[in-house]
Amino acid sequence: MQKKRVVIAGMGFGGLRAAKALAGSDVELTMIDRNNYHLFQPLLYQVATAGLEQEAIAYPLRGLTRQWPNASFLLAEIGGVDLAGKSVLTDAGSIPYDYLIVAAGSRTNFFNMKSVETYAFDLKQLAQAEDLRNHILLTFEHASRETDPQRRAALLTFVIVGGGPTGVEFAGALRELIVYVLSQDYSTIGVTETRIVLVEAADSLLTAMPANLRLYAHQKLCSMGVEVLLENRVVGATAESVELHGGAVIPSHTLLWSAGVAAADLAGRLDGVERGAAGRVVVQPGLNLKEYPEVFVVGDMSCCVENGAPLPMMAPVASQQGDYAARMILAREQGKTLPPFHYFDKGAMATIGRSSAVAAAAGFTFRGYVAWLAWLLLHLYYLIGFRNRLVVMMNWTYAYWFQERQVRLITAKKRRAEQL
Amino acid sequence: MQKKRVVIAGMGFGGLRAAKALAGSDVELTMIDRNNYHLFQPLLYQVATAGLEQEAIAYPLRGLTRQWPNASFLLAEIGGVDLAGKSVLTDAGSIPYDYLIVAAGSRTNFFNMKSVETYAFDLKQLAQAEDLRNHILLTFEHASRETDPQRRAALLTFVIVGGGPTGVEFAGALRELIVYVLSQDYSTIGVTETRIVLVEAADSLLTAMPANLRLYAHQKLCSMGVEVLLENRVVGATAESVELHGGAVIPSHTLLWSAGVAAADLAGRLDGVERGAAGRVVVQPGLNLKEYPEVFVVGDMSCCVENGAPLPMMAPVASQQGDYAARMILAREQGKTLPPFHYFDKGAMATIGRSSAVAAAAGFTFRGYVAWLAWLLLHLYYLIGFRNRLVVMMNWTYAYWFQERQVRLITAKKRRAEQL
Repeated sequence: MQKKRVVIAGMGFGGLRAAKALAGSDVELTMIDRNNYHLFQPLLYQVATAGLEQEAIAYPLRGLTRQWPNASFLLAEIGGVDLAGKSVLTDAGSIPYDYLIVAAGSRTNFFNMKSVETYAFDLKQLAQAEDLRNHILLTFEHASRETDPQRRAALLTFVIVGGGPTGVEFAGALRELIVYVLSQDYSTIGVTETRIVLVEAADSLLTAMPANLRLYAHQKLCSMGVEVLLENRVVGATAESVELHGGAVIPSHTLLWSAGVAAADLAGRLDGVERGAAGRVVVQPGLNLKEYPEVFVVGDMSCCVENGAPLPMMAPVASQQGDYAARMILAREQGKTLPPFHYFDKGAMATIGRSSAVAAAAGFTFRGYVAWLAWLLLHLYYLIGFRNRLVVMMNWTYAYWFQERQVRLITAKKRRAEQL
Repeated sequence: MQKKRVVIAGMGFGGLRAAKALAGSDVELTMIDRNNYHLFQPLLYQVATAGLEQEAIAYPLRGLTRQWPNASFLLAEIGGVDLAGKSVLTDAGSIPYDYLIVAAGSRTNFFNMKSVETYAFDLKQLAQAEDLRNHILLTFEHASRETDPQRRAALLTFVIVGGGPTGVEFAGALRELIVYVLSQDYSTIGVTETRIVLVEAADSLLTAMPANLRLYAHQKLCSMGVEVLLENRVVGATAESVELHGGAVIPSHTLLWSAGVAAADLAGRLDGVERGAAGRVVVQPGLNLKEYPEVFVVGDMSCCVENGAPLPMMAPVASQQGDYAARMILAREQGKTLPPFHYFDKGAMATIGRSSAVAAAAGFTFRGYVAWLAWLLLHLYYLIGFRNRLVVMMNWTYAYWFQERQVRLITAKKRRAEQL
């Protein structure tokens, strides 16, 4: 009897965990991704702030298939899914399946603000992090020889939108890059000339965290020198300015948008399926589509309601759902089933700076050095591959001891450079 | 009295060594480069063959200026030099000088073969090495799903032109990448399906080496599975083929050109100076221009004749000349001078593969394991910065132990991807 063909569309956290659960089992596994690597997105902000080389947070997917005899990898763009005909449509041909796990993740949501989409940076892909790093370093290069004081100030002003973990972590890391590294590199630029503005629509940062941690993160960022603007929104941008709700304009050449995500475009190309908020695909308690029980949707793309609300779009949810979908497939093949998916919330954490982080887990809250150390160790643990762990640990140790970041290279003058 | 202004145009090996010699002296030093890093070009081929991340062979130049109070750095493209007016013309304004060290290096020389220039890769810049790595990995991705056997064979054929150190080292490293890594990654592609052809116009490889080492390198490459075509030349290329002198055509999607260099374009923009072969600037025995004794030209750009022949275009010559020019400036400032420049030939070496290299020094020749170990240690020694040494050593150790190369990421589908 021919083995059942399981296809995983997208190799982020959900796809990776599903693949691991299916490795070595009695199915024929095909993993599809547009990149040949799994990307550890939570550390993208460190690539953007010259703390890590991009190779350290990417793991080649063929490093997995070579260990898994029942698995193969296909580098391809996925255009859609023929749900009735059971095949995934890619630019490398159609791939038939018996079971499909759709795990294509999310894209940045600019809420139809075209000017922001044009001029803002966002952090979803590896190349975007490298672009942003190049851009930040270029703003300092240009500022160091700019004679017009207003233009110089605009070059040295960085606006970050979104007070979630990405915005908070990026703001802290950028501030430390400037204070510890760039102010040494550019003797003519003073730290006080630089400005980092973090804009958040809600009335606090890290809204998913307990109140005492929200306050700690806010106070810590302020004490580091980051300006936090709460209950405000960015509504427009040009190459040299950022417009706030209410009309105020901040002259700035750098805008990072981390204020929203929506399901990947693939969700919109699944015909006839129900979609919830942010374009996410509504799934059954077993994470499958109602009409197509052989199709599972996991992670950011999946709208899975628990306790009356959709689960958040974050890595732990995706991982657990990927694992669940894989185990459900194996169970069904044995004529069994599994109880409905349940998300086990292990907690949340965010690092703010050197020796400073916040973490909430099992009803307890941690902050400062202990939370920071826990953050470091957990991120090392969740990174894929011995070598990546080693490189990241080395970088962190080096940065901690020497207050240096060696990866401050302007590797290519790509997108946006001409707008400086 | 105002300090004398010394400008260094180009921060390759010549410029870097000149800057080191002038650091802490009583001059005002300005270093100009189009990149914000010094690039260790001899290891570019390892970036192109997924052995090293690009950050490991680049050192941020502001990491030097922060240690040198008399030095500053300018990121700029140099358009020319106003020799009479004593200023360097850049896209960031003109930079006046009292002394100038021109060290802009070389560019690849395609000898006016437009089709080769269009389709060949070359290894001078960091981005080119990353492009070539992406391209090599993409050829395997495409070959793994190609059904037409001829097209598949062309995708898996790699042509390298030039049997100098770069061509030999790249051929060996690519062969090992395929044998040890890619043949594991792509279970459907056999090593015997792949083909590496090294084309050299002369009657031996490594023509600068003693005869026994030339023979050893040739035999070693052949035994590794590289086809060596001597006394042949590439005269044309398309995206899918390489044409040899005599009319033979090799179907191949990958052509690396390492068969010639010429002085950087800046040499041609120095008005009224005498130029020798490959567009190099003819200099006096003190490395300065005849009419402008305050202008020195060092490294690949400099045509410095010793024993009746111009010195070769290689890193040790550039380093020694940069050092000499800097010391000459300091001597002149004290009303002294130096004896004419003399190149001290420490020897030459090239690595071929795992535990295999050739080296010639002080009349002795070495090959095999001893030469390989010497090659490793010397390259580590000449790398700039503790961190880069550490990262490179770690990569080499990892590759040696695990026969793995983790940097096999396709980071962006840039130039040439569409031609596959």
